[in-house]
Amino acid sequence: MRLTLLGTGDAGGMPRYGCDCDRCEYVRNNMQHCRRPASALLECDGKRYLIDAGLMDIAERFPAGSLDSILVTHFHADHVQGLFHLRWGTGDKIPVLCPPDTSGCGDLFKHPGILEFRSLKKYDAFYLGDLKVTPLPLIHSKPTFGYLFEYKQQSIAYMVDTKGLPPKVEELLIDKEIDTLIIDTSSPPNVENRNHNNLGETLAIHETLMPKKTVMTHIGHDLDLWLNDNASKLPDEVDIGHDGYRIYN
Amino acid sequence: MRLTLLGTGDAGGMPRYGCDCDRCEYVRNNMQHCRRPASALLECDGKRYLIDAGLMDIAERFPAGSLDSILVTHFHADHVQGLFHLRWGTGDKIPVLCPPDTSGCGDLFKHPGILEFRSLKKYDAFYLGDLKVTPLPLIHSKPTFGYLFEYKQQSIAYMVDTKGLPPKVEELLIDKEIDTLIIDTSSPPNVENRNHNNLGETLAIHETLMPKKTVMTHIGHDLDLWLNDNASKLPDEVDIGHDGYRIYN
Repeated sequence: MRLTLLGTGDAGGMPRYGCDCDRCEYVRNNMQHCRRPASALLECDGKRYLIDAGLMDIAERFPAGSLDSILVTHFHADHVQGLFHLRWGTGDKIPVLCPPDTSGCGDLFKHPGILEFRSLKKYDAFYLGDLKVTPLPLIHSKPTFGYLFEYKQQSIAYMVDTKGLPPKVEELLIDKEIDTLIIDTSSPPNVENRNHNNLGETLAIHETLMPKKTVMTHIGHDLDLWLNDNASKLPDEVDIGHDGYRIYN
Repeated sequence: MRLTLLGTGDAGGMPRYGCDCDRCEYVRNNMQHCRRPASALLECDGKRYLIDAGLMDIAERFPAGSLDSILVTHFHADHVQGLFHLRWGTGDKIPVLCPPDTSGCGDLFKHPGILEFRSLKKYDAFYLGDLKVTPLPLIHSKPTFGYLFEYKQQSIAYMVDTKGLPPKVEELLIDKEIDTLIIDTSSPPNVENRNHNNLGETLAIHETLMPKKTVMTHIGHDLDLWLNDNASKLPDEVDIGHDGYRIYN
């Protein structure tokens, strides 16, 4: 399976609208360093699964028929705002697998259009072809699932958005000896963030789970700046995600 | 004042996602004919006002400081979805003038970020510099305002989304002898649409108000197809809006 990070930013992204700091100005002129809303594309066995739908140009990136399902981690706007337009398409329904959340976002549930929302149950693994997917509850301000993907002895855990991990999820991931952990890391070390990991919290999770590789995503403006100066301080097994970053497992 | 239609489509737009009709295929290959979410830019006395925020790339089109206010007609997603990202900017607040609607869309009111929502009152005219703006109630499935803009004996009425007009609004616009009427026209003639005008209803409004020019916007897929074959049947004073259409009044 191949996972491509399509977006690695928080809701504000990089560059941040209205910010005139040196880094934002640089990114504005070098958009290959921008950070779009956190999202990813998982490709496995000829199928393509979009993980979160905060990108604003889903219709252009993924013509009808090119996505097999969309997996939503939670219904904050930066993870689903691209669905508002997509739903008014025509033709085949697109399954949208998501955590149980009665409110969703805006009127998505009231007017789903071509989207077919299907609530998942935590820990209740299911298969997409030979790909095993396990929804794992995370710690966030809205019902949120991370997803553990397992395929031919390889495993990727995509854990966005969260602050820490529930003990049972930690235990499960330790047992699995996962290959790649992709994890919400929004703030610089020692900067408290009520609903997201700061870098210290991510490194602690990395130490606990000991995946072969940890990749940070959902990177906020201040952490982006911090990482730009301090990347060399990270452990070898911890990578800074960027839009377009690819993982082969 | 100069008004530019930035988007002239309904929520699904043109081309419609997943549609393989000849017209959609043509538009997909000739994107100058696409229809983005209905929205406009009003420029007057060196100030710039965005009317509705359904465009997905507001941050790129309008760098910080380049918009003086945003006027929202109503809180359906195709009119406000671009605000979900924009709000997380930094720096000066952006006034967002809107109809009173306790629910808004998603969590925009809960987390407004740099947006400063200000509820307007129907018929309660106000000034933006020398530009007089009158919010006019429309007939739609959510609290919705059209806006009458008056500047130096010139007038533009932007009436989106609506099915028909309340009698009092009709009277007011007849009295004003407006120059340009921009009006929601979503469906072909004789196709009933619960919340939007079809072409027949728009032509009836045009006959009643007798503006110098009527411009159709919020054009749906089926009307786009109909107009492509039948444009010559329209009265001379009725124009088909397109993305980029400009009105000088």
